[in-house]
Amino acid sequence: VSRWQPDARERLERAAIELFTEKGFAATTVPEITARAGLTTRTFFRHFADKREVLFGGEAISGLADRFLADVPADADPVTLIITGLTTAAETRFEGRRAELRQRWAIVRSDDSLRERELRKWDAVREATRHALLSRGATATTAALLADTSVSVFQVSLEQWLDQDGERPLAELITGTFQSLRTALTTSGPERG
Amino acid sequence: VSRWQPDARERLERAAIELFTEKGFAATTVPEITARAGLTTRTFFRHFADKREVLFGGEAISGLADRFLADVPADADPVTLIITGLTTAAETRFEGRRAELRQRWAIVRSDDSLRERELRKWDAVREATRHALLSRGATATTAALLADTSVSVFQVSLEQWLDQDGERPLAELITGTFQSLRTALTTSGPERG
Repeated sequence: VSRWQPDARERLERAAIELFTEKGFAATTVPEITARAGLTTRTFFRHFADKREVLFGGEAISGLADRFLADVPADADPVTLIITGLTTAAETRFEGRRAELRQRWAIVRSDDSLRERELRKWDAVREATRHALLSRGATATTAALLADTSVSVFQVSLEQWLDQDGERPLAELITGTFQSLRTALTTSGPERG
Repeated sequence: VSRWQPDARERLERAAIELFTEKGFAATTVPEITARAGLTTRTFFRHFADKREVLFGGEAISGLADRFLADVPADADPVTLIITGLTTAAETRFEGRRAELRQRWAIVRSDDSLRERELRKWDAVREATRHALLSRGATATTAALLADTSVSVFQVSLEQWLDQDGERPLAELITGTFQSLRTALTTSGPERG
């Protein structure tokens, strides 16, 4: 094993998900994960604070929203901004990893502390999205509402994508879900009913 | 102090919020709360599992959404349903308690474990709302999206209501926030440009 491991993080993530699936999250240790990945525990702790964090990417969420929005024109309206951010996230971080993400999802659901950590992750995503929208000129109310909407649309689409047997790309499901929300909000209600 | 305490829960909540504000959450004990409320610790534990739960109502969230929707006609569309549910919640649970809820909000923000518990509470509200919409005939996608939307609109409106110096009722802020979301989603975006 060479000292330089450009794919160390991905290997640790894959090994951890395999072991959590085989033995359960609680019964798996960090040395077992590193042995499976053919890496040292020192390398493990360079990437992740503990075994729980392997399931949560080990990177700061706060910079992600800005990265996904880097290529969006400065004058884009807020909705174009969030749809572009969501589809970019889908294409660069999720597409092609469905089997692994299905296993991850089952592991997270199996443990209370992981479910809480997952709630905190999505809360951090909301917060990062809200800041990204604010820094691009959205009002406080619009930024908060559209950040929540982004997370909701992404989560609903992600669940459809994980559940489906077909091959519809996540990005396509996202634009469809977004359109469903628009339709639900505009075709009913006391003011339009 | 008579044995029958119809307002015991409210007195314990008020006493707890006073003490948490004065001394901090961590430094306050259950006996201090019951002494302030003029009640026994036995009464306390009849209503709440521990001192943290005093801040979270001590009642199951799962039944609340259905209760707020009890008076909505069976054939109401989903958006009418959620607006009615939210404004009913605002009028019956929040209006008239702004000073106390401001203090509660400051306490929750002061402590990591309380912030996590708050995230779990809102997740439970989402889940209860989703179930209420499903049981009234919404599709799975619409139920999930509108449950998330309900929580988002409520949270944004609640923050406005807690922050404002004026006297606009929470229910009025909710209908305004909902309209802002509709406008944000329909007046921009790649498909409407």
